[in-house]
Amino acid sequence: MQLKKLRKLLNELTVTEKVGQLIQLSGEFFESSNDIVVGPEQKLGISPKIVNLSGSVLNVAGAKKTREIQDRYMAKSKHHIPLLFMADIIYGYKTIYPIPLGLGATWNTKLIRDAYKNTASEAKASGVQVAFAPMVDLVRDPRWGRVLESTGEDPYLNSQFSSSMVEGLQNGLNEGHGMASCIKHFAAYGAAESGKEYNTTDMSEYRLRNQYLPSYKAAVDSGVKMVMTSFNSLNGVPATANEWLMKKVLREEWGFEGVLISDYAAVSELVAHGIAEDNRMATQQALKATVDIDMKSPCYANELEPLLENGSISEEKVNEAVWRVLKLKNELGLFEDPYRGASEQAERHELVSKKRRELARKVADRAMVLLKNQNNILPLNKNQKIALIGPYADSQELIGLWAVHGNTKDVISISQAFREHVTKQNLKIAEGTNILENKEILNNTGISSDEQKSFVLTHEEESQKNQEAIEAAKNADVVVMVLGEHTLESGEAGSKTNLTLPDNQLKLLEKIRSLNKKIVLVVISGRPLVLSNIEPQVDAIIQAWFPGTEGGHAVADVIFGGFNPSGRLSMSFPYSVGQLPIYYNHFSTGRSPETSKHSTRYTAKYIDTPVKPLYPFGFGLSYHHAIYSNLRLNKKTMNKEDNIKVSVDIRNDSEVAGEETVQLYIRDVVGSIVRPVKELKSFKKVALPANSTITVSFEVTNDMLKFYGRDLNYESEPGNFEIFVGNNSETDLKEKFSLIDE
Amino acid sequence: MQLKKLRKLLNELTVTEKVGQLIQLSGEFFESSNDIVVGPEQKLGISPKIVNLSGSVLNVAGAKKTREIQDRYMAKSKHHIPLLFMADIIYGYKTIYPIPLGLGATWNTKLIRDAYKNTASEAKASGVQVAFAPMVDLVRDPRWGRVLESTGEDPYLNSQFSSSMVEGLQNGLNEGHGMASCIKHFAAYGAAESGKEYNTTDMSEYRLRNQYLPSYKAAVDSGVKMVMTSFNSLNGVPATANEWLMKKVLREEWGFEGVLISDYAAVSELVAHGIAEDNRMATQQALKATVDIDMKSPCYANELEPLLENGSISEEKVNEAVWRVLKLKNELGLFEDPYRGASEQAERHELVSKKRRELARKVADRAMVLLKNQNNILPLNKNQKIALIGPYADSQELIGLWAVHGNTKDVISISQAFREHVTKQNLKIAEGTNILENKEILNNTGISSDEQKSFVLTHEEESQKNQEAIEAAKNADVVVMVLGEHTLESGEAGSKTNLTLPDNQLKLLEKIRSLNKKIVLVVISGRPLVLSNIEPQVDAIIQAWFPGTEGGHAVADVIFGGFNPSGRLSMSFPYSVGQLPIYYNHFSTGRSPETSKHSTRYTAKYIDTPVKPLYPFGFGLSYHHAIYSNLRLNKKTMNKEDNIKVSVDIRNDSEVAGEETVQLYIRDVVGSIVRPVKELKSFKKVALPANSTITVSFEVTNDMLKFYGRDLNYESEPGNFEIFVGNNSETDLKEKFSLIDE
Repeated sequence: MQLKKLRKLLNELTVTEKVGQLIQLSGEFFESSNDIVVGPEQKLGISPKIVNLSGSVLNVAGAKKTREIQDRYMAKSKHHIPLLFMADIIYGYKTIYPIPLGLGATWNTKLIRDAYKNTASEAKASGVQVAFAPMVDLVRDPRWGRVLESTGEDPYLNSQFSSSMVEGLQNGLNEGHGMASCIKHFAAYGAAESGKEYNTTDMSEYRLRNQYLPSYKAAVDSGVKMVMTSFNSLNGVPATANEWLMKKVLREEWGFEGVLISDYAAVSELVAHGIAEDNRMATQQALKATVDIDMKSPCYANELEPLLENGSISEEKVNEAVWRVLKLKNELGLFEDPYRGASEQAERHELVSKKRRELARKVADRAMVLLKNQNNILPLNKNQKIALIGPYADSQELIGLWAVHGNTKDVISISQAFREHVTKQNLKIAEGTNILENKEILNNTGISSDEQKSFVLTHEEESQKNQEAIEAAKNADVVVMVLGEHTLESGEAGSKTNLTLPDNQLKLLEKIRSLNKKIVLVVISGRPLVLSNIEPQVDAIIQAWFPGTEGGHAVADVIFGGFNPSGRLSMSFPYSVGQLPIYYNHFSTGRSPETSKHSTRYTAKYIDTPVKPLYPFGFGLSYHHAIYSNLRLNKKTMNKEDNIKVSVDIRNDSEVAGEETVQLYIRDVVGSIVRPVKELKSFKKVALPANSTITVSFEVTNDMLKFYGRDLNYESEPGNFEIFVGNNSETDLKEKFSLIDE
Repeated sequence: MQLKKLRKLLNELTVTEKVGQLIQLSGEFFESSNDIVVGPEQKLGISPKIVNLSGSVLNVAGAKKTREIQDRYMAKSKHHIPLLFMADIIYGYKTIYPIPLGLGATWNTKLIRDAYKNTASEAKASGVQVAFAPMVDLVRDPRWGRVLESTGEDPYLNSQFSSSMVEGLQNGLNEGHGMASCIKHFAAYGAAESGKEYNTTDMSEYRLRNQYLPSYKAAVDSGVKMVMTSFNSLNGVPATANEWLMKKVLREEWGFEGVLISDYAAVSELVAHGIAEDNRMATQQALKATVDIDMKSPCYANELEPLLENGSISEEKVNEAVWRVLKLKNELGLFEDPYRGASEQAERHELVSKKRRELARKVADRAMVLLKNQNNILPLNKNQKIALIGPYADSQELIGLWAVHGNTKDVISISQAFREHVTKQNLKIAEGTNILENKEILNNTGISSDEQKSFVLTHEEESQKNQEAIEAAKNADVVVMVLGEHTLESGEAGSKTNLTLPDNQLKLLEKIRSLNKKIVLVVISGRPLVLSNIEPQVDAIIQAWFPGTEGGHAVADVIFGGFNPSGRLSMSFPYSVGQLPIYYNHFSTGRSPETSKHSTRYTAKYIDTPVKPLYPFGFGLSYHHAIYSNLRLNKKTMNKEDNIKVSVDIRNDSEVAGEETVQLYIRDVVGSIVRPVKELKSFKKVALPANSTITVSFEVTNDMLKFYGRDLNYESEPGNFEIFVGNNSETDLKEKFSLIDE
């Protein structure tokens, strides 16, 4: 539709119709064919009049259903404005990829762009037009369950992924392909204090701009169509009412012209935050902060009109919001095709197709992170006797909590994949115990007492399961144990204070260990767990995250050497919970334990735990053996227009070809404000043939040296810098250069 | 000396002499009678010329020694400017009080004022003229070892103590009594990220002004003579170079005209922070931030003169700093009496006198916090058979790390105090194990391998000690176990990630428990430990902190009922380390687990740990039984000139008279910024006779409702408030009122 015509349409709408465009309800409101749906409306307290005018819908998917709803809606719509279908499609629609923390571990933005392009294609066939993805919150505290949805702790790496995911989803949007991307959660939700869900965030503007905002800005720069507000308050003002954040930074500074949507019920939660007296005041504050769509709260629906009537808000402000919504619908071509190509036929072609599975497997392979491989126990010889043990050994529960539309029945379990490699007589499989038996956790995740019975084993059942596992392991040459947290233990509202493996699983591990077998541990989790106590007890560790639909294949690919693991952590694995938050790019202190002149005691550390994480950012092993050397710069001085070429030699002294993730970190030695001890500024994925040496080069540019300094200008500052290159953030290969001001 | 004459003196000084006034060295520089002390100077890199001119000295005490040093110094001093003696006198000089976290638990500011007055009197006799106390940092994370030195987590309570400690130390200063107080550490050192010593602090100005700054400001308002900078960077700028904090807030806004001193070596550490290229730049930055004295770094000594010569700093700035130092010396009367009354005779009268011991016991009694007392097991009947067990049972190590000048040989041990109550045949005493056997901790606290031998028992020795304890307990009617952390595990650089009792002590407890005796646990610690696992295993718990010189008496006073415990926690005791930081006055979120309409899962909590601490702020038990009721307000509405009278009835339905700490909390329901869920605004210590009811009243004033809001003005905001009165921060006795704008 031409914009002129669209503008005309806007002008024709009544105030009530305009308000309708600014509210989003969930599917239940639309699923009945009755004119008036009583139940859900009453619960939310919204008048039926508005429900019928609601402009968008949350988490309805499937061609048949979305078409039916659209047909019914359009039939009632005086102005024939189509309903906009949005859904939680975070790391795959039906074909589920590894959780984003696993995607982060690929360090492969090109591949991930492709994965999100494929996801959009799948979801589009089912009638979903907007994905609430990517989640680009910077995360540093694995107590928080939503680290699952993030690509990790690094501003630069997150920004790269943010762009590539947005580009993937929105690829070809103007030509009718892909879907609109809605990044979340703006802003700094990942800094929730004490790792507690929905908690306060509070930080200086330096920290905010240098570390937390870049990944959102990258998405805006990549043309993202929508932004979602976060639940948290930031520096005293909840994001959903934060005019400075939304209006000044997002819209005015960054030039974002798209649709801003609240998170689920976040507008009405301004009352609980104690920033609004009631829903009316909350509505006024959110609109003032330029929030366009109120998701799942009664605020905009019930309060916008009274506010207009009493003059507290201007119709112009409402018009601006409606205009952004209409423009998005128009950009998506909904006025021409309200289904946007959704059809059951397309679904048959698109959903979990062979091609999609291949891509999901490719991605999942690359998300696996090999954390330990003592005496090169991996890859395993397939002709050994193998015991595959653990509650995740034979499980399809590999997609994680936020794969809202995925089906576990599509999942390749690890046992199924193992059977493709190992003969029946060489493979014994036993669960050994259940995934989750902790009653406090079951209670807190809302599992009813009745349901809990299926989780918790009796003492006899537990003993029997344990015994089955012991029997399976007894005659094995090697035991592969697949342990981990339950799906319900991570994701939204999955904050935990104890990050070790569940007790019942640890007990099983102990029993198996007493058999003195080689043990390969595969960890299924939505977060970095604390593995320091069990690390010495096993021979190899593979961090497998929730690996998705093709998860079983990916684990088997790594274990049997079909794929040489290349994953590198994008989030530190803590040594203990007491270290949290922990991250590699922390600020310099006056007394670093590495460089301080003070005695052993008086340095910035803990006395009972190493100051370092168990596994640092950027870390991961492979089956080849790479040695980095000869770091060199083509010059030691550059000015702001100049750049420096940095080269490093990488030798593979093994018989195995592999892939290296060559990481370049820079330290700004002196700044107008305190600077991080190092920051990732570039990386390259390179093939490393067997028995060979390659040279990898980077260009250091002035842009890499910029930051928000004392005056909050984004600039580089002349002075000395250190440059580190290696295969993890703790590399000690180091050189120096200077930026000069001429 | 008249100020005119003092000014003349300043003008007579050479630049080098001026610089001398601005540096502080430690005692070793002055202890030799040689003109040139080579060792320490070389180590620090300071020229001998400056050492002889150094204007103040750190941690030298004792009348004989300080007089000798002063004599030697004055003899060499052309202008007869006396040396200023400053020392770490944090919670007592020779008579040691409980650690400040215990003082906080008294909620008795009048008594603590008296304690600090007594401390000043003692220290003055020994020639110390400035105390580096009080430490007034707000603390919320017991991982940080320096919580020991703080009065806790509450801005209001800390402010009350800050004032009373400053007033106590400086009492009668103009009449030649007391000593100058130097508060520390400005500012927000207690917010060190991840509870890690010396770590970054970063927060919004709202949080800083509403929560972290009030206790420093209270000291300035009470006329404190000195302020010490903190080690941490705050929002990107190390405190010691933080012009905004020091010049704008401290001096210009608050009107502080006293001496600002760096913490130990903090000026030179600006280089490690990466804010200064070298010591010269560090010097320039610190002076610009109005830091007057450089403690124990070579910066001012070596760099001020070159900076003056090259015009980078003005002599006027140096003069201002020197003037403040000279003025302080003059205010202390040093030009008239450079010893300020110090004499060995005075020491004989003052140090650890009977009167001082009585006061220390009175304070220590009131610092004890009874956390559990199942079936009123306490107070103990003295005629029972009692086993006193644990590494602290017979130990004089009860003064904690920062009692720098205290002597453990003056300490009344718990065993000694018990012997005053219990007959020899009824009392068995056994250590059971050592305090600290953890090798990682021993290594990290700088204990040499040789020294470690005295800490760590062999397996046989451990078994034997355990066995002795079991034998002692076997025939007892009740077991009193005194467990805790080692002195070296808290205080500066005592950050820990595991806050349970040491493993060897837990094992001992388990063995004793298997005897099925009643157990009273006394906890010696410099911080809130995590007691959730052992709480169900014992019948009573007394939190005894490091209770000081009279510590043994205080513990016995409570245990045998000589004193009805009245201590109330000034810092939350976490349920687990994974909750940290945790504090009662946290900000409201959008999804409080108490009030949210969301399902069990989707609230601001953890799924594996209670959201509350084990013991909340303000909590503590007594031997009497108080019931609070009938909370009432004389009106429900007030304007800004008005106030409201709040009354509550407290009934004691026991036969025991006691003391109540009646606490008043206010919640500002809606604010221009997000407000804490409640805040302590007043409290009263009241006597509660046996079998009686009393009424306690408070006035709610407009001042109590003020805070730094959206525009950072300090004002109250009209609207609704909730008022809570009770004997801890989780009281549910609640009323409402409104502030109106007329």
